[in-house]
Amino acid sequence: MFLKDIGEFGLIERIGRGCLIRSEGVIKAIGDDAAVIRTRPGRVQLITTDLLLERVHFLREAASGADLGYKALAVNLSDIAAMGGTPREAFVSIAVPEDCRIEFLEDLYRGMKALAARYEVNILGGDTTASAADLVINVTLAGEADPSEVLYRHGACVGDVVCVTGSLGDSRAGLHLILNRIAADGPDRQALVRAHLRPRPRVAEGRFLAACGAVHAAIDISDGLSSDLGHIAAASGVGACIHTRQLPLSAPLKAFCGEFGRDPVDQALAGGEDYELLCTVAAQAFESIQDRYARRFGRPLYPIGKVTATGEMVRVDSDGNTVRLAPSGWDHFAKNGAARRCRR
Amino acid sequence: MFLKDIGEFGLIERIGRGCLIRSEGVIKAIGDDAAVIRTRPGRVQLITTDLLLERVHFLREAASGADLGYKALAVNLSDIAAMGGTPREAFVSIAVPEDCRIEFLEDLYRGMKALAARYEVNILGGDTTASAADLVINVTLAGEADPSEVLYRHGACVGDVVCVTGSLGDSRAGLHLILNRIAADGPDRQALVRAHLRPRPRVAEGRFLAACGAVHAAIDISDGLSSDLGHIAAASGVGACIHTRQLPLSAPLKAFCGEFGRDPVDQALAGGEDYELLCTVAAQAFESIQDRYARRFGRPLYPIGKVTATGEMVRVDSDGNTVRLAPSGWDHFAKNGAARRCRR
Repeated sequence: MFLKDIGEFGLIERIGRGCLIRSEGVIKAIGDDAAVIRTRPGRVQLITTDLLLERVHFLREAASGADLGYKALAVNLSDIAAMGGTPREAFVSIAVPEDCRIEFLEDLYRGMKALAARYEVNILGGDTTASAADLVINVTLAGEADPSEVLYRHGACVGDVVCVTGSLGDSRAGLHLILNRIAADGPDRQALVRAHLRPRPRVAEGRFLAACGAVHAAIDISDGLSSDLGHIAAASGVGACIHTRQLPLSAPLKAFCGEFGRDPVDQALAGGEDYELLCTVAAQAFESIQDRYARRFGRPLYPIGKVTATGEMVRVDSDGNTVRLAPSGWDHFAKNGAARRCRR
Repeated sequence: MFLKDIGEFGLIERIGRGCLIRSEGVIKAIGDDAAVIRTRPGRVQLITTDLLLERVHFLREAASGADLGYKALAVNLSDIAAMGGTPREAFVSIAVPEDCRIEFLEDLYRGMKALAARYEVNILGGDTTASAADLVINVTLAGEADPSEVLYRHGACVGDVVCVTGSLGDSRAGLHLILNRIAADGPDRQALVRAHLRPRPRVAEGRFLAACGAVHAAIDISDGLSSDLGHIAAASGVGACIHTRQLPLSAPLKAFCGEFGRDPVDQALAGGEDYELLCTVAAQAFESIQDRYARRFGRPLYPIGKVTATGEMVRVDSDGNTVRLAPSGWDHFAKNGAARRCRR
């Protein structure tokens, strides 16, 4: 049996059993954006890790070292953001093929350190080794939070407003431009490529949402809205109804879709690597939170639907039709080959 | 410029600058077996990470999944052991090529979980992804210690006794058998292969040495005795004198060296992947510690030399000749190709 037969989540299910040896002090083990461990009264530690490989997550010739270093840390910052935490210490493992230039690696660390400095994160260690073929980067990031303010995937309640922190689908469109070597000429295309290469981790937004006391569940959108909403729904035992006309779609995405014959709603639902936060907010608190959020960040918190009791996810399209919303987005072990985008 | 031109430590020196953004709470950043972070009064957290790649650190066809999973965790346990800590929580990233069987991965996690259970370590998270070519495993391990009992590389004092916890060179001999597809027939060869595939992390030994209050510096022998002693010497600003006839050499290693025309002392000095602890002990306390160690573990703590004020490392051979001891062992970016064993 191979991984394409059972998929990434099938693998996680198989290997996840028997991993918890001591439950004392462990608040959340495998199954959320980060593990949550009790450290001292009033604080918990959050730990997350992400592995990036050449030819799977990036093409060395299509990104600068600085972009790559930025992104390797950013995706971890996004996980800590989704838990409502403050990122603290990073550990970076890197495997370097023989044909990789020192200058590229220095640029990579420059990009990573600049982002680390912006978020006050230390890089405290790591491992460096050779690689026979691909450049490999693994970042482990530890953060911290108040235990009463941690955001999990499992808390969504029926009636909650489903929200996102920013526009969706841009990163996927940017990836299309990069993979097809389409020149990023003009500000629209540049914005899309930038959304893919330099996603902005929503750390302050995550902290705000965690502190406001009415956010019941959260995740960062790495696999795609429908997939990641599926994770919240599954962990919370609820369904969800998304109104597609409420999805925040950027002008550059709409221009891209017009030009390349894509449906912007599909792009937004299956996006992947948006690194916006997706959360569910108690309905009675939503307006006040939305208001405070907009004043604090100068951008809206976008309501896109509701949590339902049905146990399934649906989308209501602009023509009023309700159709089942299937998780779609990245599965690294999709049947049609490693690291292909799949629809399941 | 390429990595073979500046080596692994040249790279670490270049990329290590500017990694510490906040010094508050950080007791040790880059440069030891693990980072040391203050968590709560009376406790520090230790964090280490190790990246293992196919065709660099292992051959998939030459090890069972269970051996590989065991070793990926064991090398991290050894780092925590070298700091005198208690290992606690592990995070496992894995990148899987298309031709890797589920059964192999399940076996890998089985080997890792069995070792985790033995050391009471939780596996609390990770990342799973595809790989275009090689199987990649990164383990990050967090541990803890009493801040007054952490063992660093930098504390060695002139006059200290240099000690190791077990025999050296076996792992390298086992690797030779594996790489050259020499049948591991008979208990001697099996012991050597086992030393390579299933190194025993010296966690209890590290805790004992840390608690006895007279161990000034420690490291685990991953690169090879002469290299790792060089790390202690450099970090402590001292030299060392090793008596080669005091090196613990196993009977299987001697048999191997007889058969394959190797010098067992060279094998022990340049070994690599022994995962024994190397430490320096206050001279006046040594005998009492050695005595207690032997009673506790049923094996000796081997004195192999002295810390000196010369600033250089020498070996005194059995014929009484004193020669300079050059660091030798693994450098992943050695000039003669990635992941080749080098003599510098």
